[in-house]
Amino acid sequence: MPLSSHRQFDIALGFAAESVERTMDRLLPSGAVGEARVFEAMRYSSLGGGKRLRAFFVLAGATLFKVGTQPALRTASAIEFVHAYSLIHDDLPAMDDDDLRRGKPTCHKQFDEATAILAGDALQALAFEVLAHEDTHGDPAVRTALVSELAKAAGARGMVGGQMLDLLAEQENSDQTIGAITHLQRLKTGALISFSCTAGAILGKASDPMRMALAGYAHDLGLAFQIVDDLLDIEGSAEELGKATGKDEAAGKATFVSILGVERARAQAGMLARQAAAHLEPFGEAADLLRQATEFVVARRT
Amino acid sequence: MPLSSHRQFDIALGFAAESVERTMDRLLPSGAVGEARVFEAMRYSSLGGGKRLRAFFVLAGATLFKVGTQPALRTASAIEFVHAYSLIHDDLPAMDDDDLRRGKPTCHKQFDEATAILAGDALQALAFEVLAHEDTHGDPAVRTALVSELAKAAGARGMVGGQMLDLLAEQENSDQTIGAITHLQRLKTGALISFSCTAGAILGKASDPMRMALAGYAHDLGLAFQIVDDLLDIEGSAEELGKATGKDEAAGKATFVSILGVERARAQAGMLARQAAAHLEPFGEAADLLRQATEFVVARRT
Repeated sequence: MPLSSHRQFDIALGFAAESVERTMDRLLPSGAVGEARVFEAMRYSSLGGGKRLRAFFVLAGATLFKVGTQPALRTASAIEFVHAYSLIHDDLPAMDDDDLRRGKPTCHKQFDEATAILAGDALQALAFEVLAHEDTHGDPAVRTALVSELAKAAGARGMVGGQMLDLLAEQENSDQTIGAITHLQRLKTGALISFSCTAGAILGKASDPMRMALAGYAHDLGLAFQIVDDLLDIEGSAEELGKATGKDEAAGKATFVSILGVERARAQAGMLARQAAAHLEPFGEAADLLRQATEFVVARRT
Repeated sequence: MPLSSHRQFDIALGFAAESVERTMDRLLPSGAVGEARVFEAMRYSSLGGGKRLRAFFVLAGATLFKVGTQPALRTASAIEFVHAYSLIHDDLPAMDDDDLRRGKPTCHKQFDEATAILAGDALQALAFEVLAHEDTHGDPAVRTALVSELAKAAGARGMVGGQMLDLLAEQENSDQTIGAITHLQRLKTGALISFSCTAGAILGKASDPMRMALAGYAHDLGLAFQIVDDLLDIEGSAEELGKATGKDEAAGKATFVSILGVERARAQAGMLARQAAAHLEPFGEAADLLRQATEFVVARRT
């Protein structure tokens, strides 16, 4: 009896999470030195939690191009380090001021603000150190391509730019259009998800059309992911999500849901997920896991 | 009539500062987009100030190995971006809580804390983006070596680790030994200075002994630089330095000067500077500018 595709996907996601967790653990600094407090904060905030969806995208993309496990896991770890750093800094009092993350106190609550700032800074540096290392790929041209793409995705024209837009939108409390929110989310979360989905193609030196197909997939799926995030902020419980909910509404923040309403937002997420799956056609059955991910993203409760 | 070596050095330092400033200006993001506030903060804190001593070390080192101007200037810019990001984050209220930097309001005073955190984050990403770009060097193996070395120098076992030690030392207010302070400074400021001094050797694919000679130079000069910083914190004026002075003493912070006293600290800085110059012997006259830099570091008033 074949496993249901839903069950298959859960197993693959769990496998990706466990393997990347082990790799991250090995790559993170440790040791009984004076500065170990920052090592502990880096470990506290990057290990032991999260869906590791970005890592899954890297691993699933890498299998399409017969990329080895070690390059894929190291690249996935680098992306998870950047993701973890962005959450640490986003949670700071001067930013979103959150006390809870993945069901645990946020980094600055567990340690202190200074340590949290430094842990985020060091996680970003670690991501680039990992990508540039020869263990990530034998060809230095591939490693520079990875560094370059991650730096763009994480920088002022990517994730950080999106975070800036988000902060400004909250302060101005102005009427936002769907176009503006889409632009914001493409930067804030979309850039890193895009890199996650295309990293396998870079590692496997895939042709441009193959890489573009994955970029199209990431483009649509990233937006679906964000719409569902907005829905969960309204419908989910803090217990399920491991973080505070209802924050967007309380802050009077424009989201896909506040503009479209729950029903249209849900329909839009479903439509984007199907559109994402359509980009996978060139890969045939080999892309089944990435196909299943589109269903997971829409159906998820956390 | 030949120029005095002092005058020669001033001209070279000024030239390095101007050229790197132009390169940084070109590399920094700009444009009238919604997220431009973070671009402005990045520009505010990285342009228009500073001695650019790190950039000078890159350019002076690069001339020893006949490295082109563009690779050297791009590498120098990347290092100055990391240096600028570290100052922005160090100045934050949760860290050193400084209002003045290079004679101007610090980034979080001029903008706000959230923007300052993001500007620092984006400057770090930009540094790696610049190094990984093909314009920095035609050989991707050289570019990955640069990324790798910068990431180590900036990370938890380098600059950030040193900053963590510094914060802990302040909180504990404990008796510090010269050994502990030396270790702290080798991480906090030494790691990035070492990379600055050896970057030219990486760009020029120099032999290991040549690179090690420059590493030895950087090692001693970095420490001399820090001792003079401590002396200036006691003897300098805020007007001259463009930042608050007397902070170490007020905080009861152990420094080279608080342990050794002014006279012995000054003697130690002079000894280290001469020791640094001795490492340059293999390069002959070609290293005259780096030699003059050792005198400058000890004699500087800002």
